[in-house]
Amino acid sequence: MTYCVGILLNDGLVMISDTRTNAGVDNIASFRKLHIFETPGDRVLALASSGNLSITQSVISMLTEGVPGTGTPDKPMVISEAPSMFEAAQLVGKAIREVHRVDAHSLEDHKMGFDVSMLLGGQIKGRRLRLFMLYSAGNFIEATPDTPFLQIGEHKYGKPILDRAINPSTDLYDALKIGLISMDSTMRSNLAVGLPLDVMIMRRDECKTELVYRIEADDPYFEDLRHRWSEALRETHLAIPRPPYNPNA
Amino acid sequence: MTYCVGILLNDGLVMISDTRTNAGVDNIASFRKLHIFETPGDRVLALASSGNLSITQSVISMLTEGVPGTGTPDKPMVISEAPSMFEAAQLVGKAIREVHRVDAHSLEDHKMGFDVSMLLGGQIKGRRLRLFMLYSAGNFIEATPDTPFLQIGEHKYGKPILDRAINPSTDLYDALKIGLISMDSTMRSNLAVGLPLDVMIMRRDECKTELVYRIEADDPYFEDLRHRWSEALRETHLAIPRPPYNPNA
Repeated sequence: MTYCVGILLNDGLVMISDTRTNAGVDNIASFRKLHIFETPGDRVLALASSGNLSITQSVISMLTEGVPGTGTPDKPMVISEAPSMFEAAQLVGKAIREVHRVDAHSLEDHKMGFDVSMLLGGQIKGRRLRLFMLYSAGNFIEATPDTPFLQIGEHKYGKPILDRAINPSTDLYDALKIGLISMDSTMRSNLAVGLPLDVMIMRRDECKTELVYRIEADDPYFEDLRHRWSEALRETHLAIPRPPYNPNA
Repeated sequence: MTYCVGILLNDGLVMISDTRTNAGVDNIASFRKLHIFETPGDRVLALASSGNLSITQSVISMLTEGVPGTGTPDKPMVISEAPSMFEAAQLVGKAIREVHRVDAHSLEDHKMGFDVSMLLGGQIKGRRLRLFMLYSAGNFIEATPDTPFLQIGEHKYGKPILDRAINPSTDLYDALKIGLISMDSTMRSNLAVGLPLDVMIMRRDECKTELVYRIEADDPYFEDLRHRWSEALRETHLAIPRPPYNPNA
């Protein structure tokens, strides 16, 4: 399982990803799921992936080596050379469809679905900062001010705090904090989402990453955040009066 | 969609259910999903249902009219006469399997799955208070002190607060309050779960309901709870320090 969230704000973009993978519950490992393609000052493209690891890794390999049927036969297009974020999202979609063409039938023979979703966020110099979510079919949607965050993987446990707390004017580091609370809620309820976490922040129009950081298992800030959040929830529900529905209770 | 939760405590049992049903997003209605079979002082059985409404209503009808193949041919067993909670759970399972036998193939012809799950909680005089969750196959599991709550329907949004706040020694009305917070988180993130809510509380060994109540859309306590919870979450995340990962930020 996986949980990744991308948050598109007036100030820039925040992306957070866990690293846990599992083939069944008895085979758990750690893999990077947040991939950053950066030419500082010119462009940053950040790609977070969820789904079957063989599929997502094949998509990433194809995006770095060249996606068949794009560019020229000698030089298929790579993600770091996409002329715009929209074309980069189309390229990721083409790579997903190419891996589907090659692998989906064999996976089906073994009763495995073709399960992949991705977040692509970033900015190319002179263009807009954008955040996309791609589906297994290679199609995609884009975050807008009405819905400034997109999630892939195990998204439900961590959605309520995002729904309540994120809006386009949220500060970048506040958004990172809220994203980490969302990640904490998810990790508490689904063991298949776990530390370490990869985080990235880029400020709008700077076309370079401002923060690329891995939060390890013993990170003191994240441990403190988890503790404070837990304590505050406890105090909050204790402070709410009891339901008055039974006058004899 | 639906969200129901049952909470089994040292003091007794709490059950909460929403009432919203939808056939697509353009056909939304309200139906009772929490059914109570009570002979005060002798027994209370509470059944909450999730899934295809035609299936769940057929199961309830069968449980009140008699489940084919149980009891005697003249007098098939009804749920209110089950000799134990375990046998009541088996009876619900048999009713699910009978509805499956009758309806599943026709549903399949129309590309519809056989989707049903139920919570059965209650106590029969001289027997233990128990809480079961039944699946589409008619099999079931039971809540234990390690996991004192069970959920059906849209369970993920509201699970984090239950995971953090419920344990077997939680007071009945505190558990109702926490269950309502869980319901609030679910309703905020999934429009297909909605008011009014049905709630039931029974105290262990009393074999009668202590509270059966419908929380309507304008309920002042529930509105206050939602407001307080929302405000407290906002204050809490604001009070947590920002991530220190970028010393220049």
